[in-house]
Amino acid sequence: MNILVINCGSSSLKYQLLDMETKNPVAKGLVERIGMVGSVLTHRPANGEKEIITAEIPNHDVAIQMVLDALVNSEYGVVKDLSEIGAVGHRVVHGGEKFASSVLVTDEVVKGIEDCIELAPLHNPPNVAGIKACQKLMPGVPEVVVFDTAFHQTMPAHAYLYGIPYELYEKYKIRKYGFHGTSHKYVSQRAAAMLNRPIEDLKLISCHLGNGSSIAAIKGGESIETSMGFTPLEGLTMGTRCGDLDPSIVSFIMRKENLTTDGVDNFMNKQCGVLGLSGVSSDFRDIEGAADEGNKRAQLALDVFAHDVKKYIGSYAAVLDGADAIIFTAGLGENSASMRENIVKGLSYLGAEIDPEKNKVRGEEIDIATADSNCRVLVIPTNEELMIAMETYDIVNQG
Amino acid sequence: MNILVINCGSSSLKYQLLDMETKNPVAKGLVERIGMVGSVLTHRPANGEKEIITAEIPNHDVAIQMVLDALVNSEYGVVKDLSEIGAVGHRVVHGGEKFASSVLVTDEVVKGIEDCIELAPLHNPPNVAGIKACQKLMPGVPEVVVFDTAFHQTMPAHAYLYGIPYELYEKYKIRKYGFHGTSHKYVSQRAAAMLNRPIEDLKLISCHLGNGSSIAAIKGGESIETSMGFTPLEGLTMGTRCGDLDPSIVSFIMRKENLTTDGVDNFMNKQCGVLGLSGVSSDFRDIEGAADEGNKRAQLALDVFAHDVKKYIGSYAAVLDGADAIIFTAGLGENSASMRENIVKGLSYLGAEIDPEKNKVRGEEIDIATADSNCRVLVIPTNEELMIAMETYDIVNQG
Repeated sequence: MNILVINCGSSSLKYQLLDMETKNPVAKGLVERIGMVGSVLTHRPANGEKEIITAEIPNHDVAIQMVLDALVNSEYGVVKDLSEIGAVGHRVVHGGEKFASSVLVTDEVVKGIEDCIELAPLHNPPNVAGIKACQKLMPGVPEVVVFDTAFHQTMPAHAYLYGIPYELYEKYKIRKYGFHGTSHKYVSQRAAAMLNRPIEDLKLISCHLGNGSSIAAIKGGESIETSMGFTPLEGLTMGTRCGDLDPSIVSFIMRKENLTTDGVDNFMNKQCGVLGLSGVSSDFRDIEGAADEGNKRAQLALDVFAHDVKKYIGSYAAVLDGADAIIFTAGLGENSASMRENIVKGLSYLGAEIDPEKNKVRGEEIDIATADSNCRVLVIPTNEELMIAMETYDIVNQG
Repeated sequence: MNILVINCGSSSLKYQLLDMETKNPVAKGLVERIGMVGSVLTHRPANGEKEIITAEIPNHDVAIQMVLDALVNSEYGVVKDLSEIGAVGHRVVHGGEKFASSVLVTDEVVKGIEDCIELAPLHNPPNVAGIKACQKLMPGVPEVVVFDTAFHQTMPAHAYLYGIPYELYEKYKIRKYGFHGTSHKYVSQRAAAMLNRPIEDLKLISCHLGNGSSIAAIKGGESIETSMGFTPLEGLTMGTRCGDLDPSIVSFIMRKENLTTDGVDNFMNKQCGVLGLSGVSSDFRDIEGAADEGNKRAQLALDVFAHDVKKYIGSYAAVLDGADAIIFTAGLGENSASMRENIVKGLSYLGAEIDPEKNKVRGEEIDIATADSNCRVLVIPTNEELMIAMETYDIVNQG
């Protein structure tokens, strides 16, 4: 069975068509600038040249129609017709407390996702647009939604509640949700396979470090704590997001810089993080480059980030009462040997030590801990599309 | 030498006169409702009955004059005349980056404290008022200021910087300062004495748990991380303070509840914490009582607090690469055996385990860890007044 995985942003759409026998993508691509001037679709068949198609793409309906056309195109397509697409899996950012797992799309499910729009005003609406477009263009093809938040719904109340009046949790659903759930779930399952141990027995600390970053404490395959919270702003200092702040800083900055609530939200999401600290870039590769050339603020931004990650690893080791493995994944986690080294340095009390030679390997699943480390250190390339496809496959074949 | 220790709040003033030979207070007391209707001074000589004096107390000058009068009173006083008071030590909340240690009061120092008013608008002004009143009423008697923030000035930049533009640190001095420094310093020194080891060799995690709570990571006698931040709002869920939040919650609540920046500050400082979670009280004794009687929200508030403390202990164990001892101090830390048990339960990976019998002891310095715990668990009653007096004594006798 081929499964089409769709990830809709407000003006972009990423897709992959995966063959569930080989678990490999047969095509992938990206639509950019939806609803804007200069819309473009970049389509990449697994065995062929990439195809760039420019056209007016006013909305997600048109974007998905173009993706489907590309997939069945006689020249650069990868399937004969749409009947070869067995199901569609959609990434949805926020499932609130309604969705603790992936589910088959029904009218009620769509309504449930719409009910969560207030919690993710920028993300859930395009997700819904993508689902509706597929319903229209691929009638009869089962669709599944996979939530970024669902994996963390196993967190206990004492972990997900903030120190605010309980009534605000009841009234506005202000609580910790956590994100990157698909990635944390995928790498924790891969970790169990690599360690050749049942996931039920494992205590794992999963570090998804990219432009957005989060860490999760995973016990017996279930998330029991995570660093992102009510929104993806909390936790680690990220590319442009501030991460944890003294809450009084928010109102202090609003007063000093004369910002509205929307203004301060925009500031905290777009102008902070390692970009604001370094003054160089939100991209860690640029910052590492600048630091290597002696830029002190760039080095400081890297040090702040490594310190943040170290603190969360320690915190989650306490929540788990120790850890069998620390997992590094996503752009930075998979690729920056120096960042991994800075983070794990000084965690000998956990029994975690990196073998510098193994730490040089890139792009594959590898255990980079020294032979006698009691806590393994794993680098695992994440694959959210495959995870979404697998969940979609399981649900479609359950029914 | 007798040293008078003064702690001025906006409408209150606490004092102790300590005999530096015995290190014991010869008198202590409290002035309440300064500048309000119903002002009152409660004076307690160490060897005598308490004396309650009601009078109009419009300002800190009058309050300190009354304290001095009480101390030399022929009936309930403790010294013959003011010449028996060798020095005054003032608690000052915020020393910003200017003050990394206690200092003798000079005009320049007073100006420095005034320069930090923006960082502690409620606390530094009455602190300054107390200093100026003593200068006026006790001319020639040396005064020393001891800062709540000074002990944490040893934090490295990667620990004290937030993930915000570096320019905001330069412009407004937005960074982590930390508080309760006098208490953390005192108990860490006592811990070294209890463990009979040089403080230079120790890694300590100090948990000051009271109505306001903070945790510090102390390495070789120096603070290298702490949970309170730019203000005393950050960190643990407290009596009425929210502690750590996703920063986006601040603007979300402002919008939903139609609050101004001052309104949300007041909300986060006064209506949150375990009070808001439990709906019962800000006093942990009331909450523990309610939980014992089956109140589920009260139990939840206690669980959130214990979880918070556990996460910080874990975090600081990572920062320190292990810990020789966890210290519990202040009202809750010293007195709640059940809270200590809940916090330390599940920290066996650190080698910390509590002996339930020893955990029952109250009001004295005690190591409550089991005999074979690699990480000791110490209960140490804090004594900020003594610490202030000792620092004052040292500085006055250096000169």
